[in-house]
Amino acid sequence: MEEKLAQLKTKLAEIVDLSQAAALLGWDQQTYMPPAGAEARGNQQAVLGRIMQEWATAPELGKLLDELKPYGESLDPNSDDARLIKVTAKDYAKATCVPTEFVVEFAQVTSLAQQSWVEARQKSDFSIFQPHLEKIVELRRKYASFFPGVEHPYDALLDDFEPGMKTEDVKAIFSALRPQQVELIKAIAEKPQVDDSFLHQPFDEQAQWDFGVEVITKFGYDWNRGRQDKSAHPFTQGMALNDVRITTRVDPNFLNSMLFGTMHECGHALYGLGSSPALDRTGLEGGASMAVHESQSRMWENLVGRSLPFWQHFYPRLQEVFPSQLANVSLNAFYKGINKVQPSLIRVEADEATYNLHIMLRLEIEIAVIEGNLAVKDLPEAWNTRMQEYLGLTPANDAQGVLQDIHWSFGGFGYFSTYALGNLVSAQLWEKINQDIPALDDQIRAGQFENLLGWLRTNIHVHGRKFEPQELVQQVTGSKIDPAPYMRYLGKKYSEIYGL
Amino acid sequence: MEEKLAQLKTKLAEIVDLSQAAALLGWDQQTYMPPAGAEARGNQQAVLGRIMQEWATAPELGKLLDELKPYGESLDPNSDDARLIKVTAKDYAKATCVPTEFVVEFAQVTSLAQQSWVEARQKSDFSIFQPHLEKIVELRRKYASFFPGVEHPYDALLDDFEPGMKTEDVKAIFSALRPQQVELIKAIAEKPQVDDSFLHQPFDEQAQWDFGVEVITKFGYDWNRGRQDKSAHPFTQGMALNDVRITTRVDPNFLNSMLFGTMHECGHALYGLGSSPALDRTGLEGGASMAVHESQSRMWENLVGRSLPFWQHFYPRLQEVFPSQLANVSLNAFYKGINKVQPSLIRVEADEATYNLHIMLRLEIEIAVIEGNLAVKDLPEAWNTRMQEYLGLTPANDAQGVLQDIHWSFGGFGYFSTYALGNLVSAQLWEKINQDIPALDDQIRAGQFENLLGWLRTNIHVHGRKFEPQELVQQVTGSKIDPAPYMRYLGKKYSEIYGL
Repeated sequence: MEEKLAQLKTKLAEIVDLSQAAALLGWDQQTYMPPAGAEARGNQQAVLGRIMQEWATAPELGKLLDELKPYGESLDPNSDDARLIKVTAKDYAKATCVPTEFVVEFAQVTSLAQQSWVEARQKSDFSIFQPHLEKIVELRRKYASFFPGVEHPYDALLDDFEPGMKTEDVKAIFSALRPQQVELIKAIAEKPQVDDSFLHQPFDEQAQWDFGVEVITKFGYDWNRGRQDKSAHPFTQGMALNDVRITTRVDPNFLNSMLFGTMHECGHALYGLGSSPALDRTGLEGGASMAVHESQSRMWENLVGRSLPFWQHFYPRLQEVFPSQLANVSLNAFYKGINKVQPSLIRVEADEATYNLHIMLRLEIEIAVIEGNLAVKDLPEAWNTRMQEYLGLTPANDAQGVLQDIHWSFGGFGYFSTYALGNLVSAQLWEKINQDIPALDDQIRAGQFENLLGWLRTNIHVHGRKFEPQELVQQVTGSKIDPAPYMRYLGKKYSEIYGL
Repeated sequence: MEEKLAQLKTKLAEIVDLSQAAALLGWDQQTYMPPAGAEARGNQQAVLGRIMQEWATAPELGKLLDELKPYGESLDPNSDDARLIKVTAKDYAKATCVPTEFVVEFAQVTSLAQQSWVEARQKSDFSIFQPHLEKIVELRRKYASFFPGVEHPYDALLDDFEPGMKTEDVKAIFSALRPQQVELIKAIAEKPQVDDSFLHQPFDEQAQWDFGVEVITKFGYDWNRGRQDKSAHPFTQGMALNDVRITTRVDPNFLNSMLFGTMHECGHALYGLGSSPALDRTGLEGGASMAVHESQSRMWENLVGRSLPFWQHFYPRLQEVFPSQLANVSLNAFYKGINKVQPSLIRVEADEATYNLHIMLRLEIEIAVIEGNLAVKDLPEAWNTRMQEYLGLTPANDAQGVLQDIHWSFGGFGYFSTYALGNLVSAQLWEKINQDIPALDDQIRAGQFENLLGWLRTNIHVHGRKFEPQELVQQVTGSKIDPAPYMRYLGKKYSEIYGL
């Protein structure tokens, strides 16, 4: 059996190597590739994708996994090898459920849909995108039908991002969360608004970049195993356990883009860099799920980077870098400014208090569409109604409403919820970390992040994809994903800032 | 047959796509990859290499080529399809001659040898490298033995870089060239030396970079289809017909590195970008051989970039960029300085007049070693003897002598000659271009390069790998590779500069 396990690991290592080559193609496409290289890049991605699909669904792989199943069950269920056999068997089963012709059709349909979405958004005309989205919804429903024993069609979609998570779980979490978030925002709206005008000034781009580098170097980002570049949309891309890169963008007239974008991506990268070396090239390196990944990025961005202790350490340094802009802005005013709550139309610009409402809106619509209870043609109206209900705003046009996000155009139904779940998990972990490291605030106030990073490594990062997200959160915090800690966190923070 | 041809093209396109993905891995390794990513990068390259080797030697490919042979012979022999079938059949025959075990062993031996070469050069101790080089020579001789009907073992090695070129051809060319080059250098040495001290001053790095960009933009480098980055050793890498990138290095205290390095790599890139779109993704895009490639890079670097008309256009601009360094240096003094002839120990620093002697020295040694007429242990002495004979210098140590170049450590026997052949071809083409474009000097003097680039595209670039180098040179100039034009070029140039 040892020999069969070694065979399995050899096959998986080659699939990982290929996926890492593909990851570099993607990274380059968004950072340095000259424009005219796009068509060839598509061909390069396609051939790698085809080989990976072939290898990941190869009958010999299935045979090996079948043979290894009893062996895996005989091991400590939390051991690397037991988990490797179990998780890989699930991956294999899922991959082989979907016919190759479907994969090809889906790639073609979404490729066209993405182009139509760009045009539709530019012209703010949903009708351009509508037929493409209808086809995508049809294919997503068909996709769900390939998996036997799935209770709700949305479960199949969710599982691609949050292994093991059910539609009912997500609904329950968000039902508990929604009234509390709406109430919080109402309470804030009744209070005088804080000033953040000083964040909207000219800030030298190189100086911004350098400050961001200083911060994430203190976080523990290892420049020997990563790098930072610029891109239109910040992202993190691992092309090896020892090569996890981030990008950021710098707005010359607004400090927040670089500041919180850099910390956010660093959070993702620290997770990717923290997998156990024993998991390297097995397919189990990386993260448990999108939500757990987002819990890490949001933790460094918000629970650390938008906290008072953090700025007690870093604000004097930031004032030193930007004296003419910030010399007359007090620490307290700065802290309030970066935590300003302001309902807005655009998800990616939302603050911590309103962000989850943007997600809930999308989630409800997604589920209804996949269930067949909402027609694609009625999406703009459904969007605008909820936007008014949750955030008190109505988009002036579809570009600022239903067309604002790219996700549906690539078929990413199920993706949005992970952003909100990530917020919840970040606060849930944070409560536990503060129990385990009572001096955490003092350490942050001193610019020391070793214990925090060490805790995350030991409890989260090292496990890679070994555990499903609910399993992992339960194991670490004692309960499954729970909205209460996040609401406690928001309540406490905004009570102080807005005097609720 | 049309259908079989289409099948062939589909298979070749996928091999090209993979090779382009591999090219990006290589480019990234030398530009942006964080240091700790190296080991994983090796695995990624290995798996792509293995798939490409499998596909390039697949029996179905051989069967298709056999079936297509009569069809190919029925077509116009210079047509794209006829050449595609012919060249691919040769590639296939060569690839299938070499056993896979040999390919694996060779990769392992050279990987270790490269590490030992680095150490040997650092310590200037040939004995560290000697056993590795002995093994490599043994494997190179074995490699040659795999090809039936090869007259001279060195022919097999040469063919990998210069398809169709024979050891006897190269020997004949260099035998004719050597006495003339030695004589020229002696004549120059008897004249007063020119001054180039003004090139060795501090020059702002960004200003250097910008000037280089200005020059190659005028050459016609298309930034939509390429880009320039920094690397320790400048190189050109195509990852698609529409994505051919260059790198350069900038020495803050010496103008030549950036200046001529940038033009050199641009020459390679223009060649890569000029293949006929009809050859895209066939394996016939790119260049005819290393020597023809080098003819392009050396032409833009030397025949254009070190010419008086070029600087009649660009020197006022360069003086504007670096007034404190160059305001008091006349055009004539500058032109002489960048063309200074000075025998030196290191090939990559050699001037146009002495460069080829560095190559001849290596070529003679390589042939003798592969023939078995020179033992690896005797290489340092053989090197130093020739260095004294040709250039009047003796290296102080092996690092400055036999250990200076990396090529043998990766088994690149046959590679060096292409540098010198490239010089010869560049001058041979230049004579023909000047016949076809009599106003070329005036155009260069006006900063106009469209006609030159147009000529190169039509006569050289567009053909990609369709023709073997000797065939191509014959077709364009009316004779095979010939050292006479290069000697006429050097003679004329240095007569003016040194008053011979």
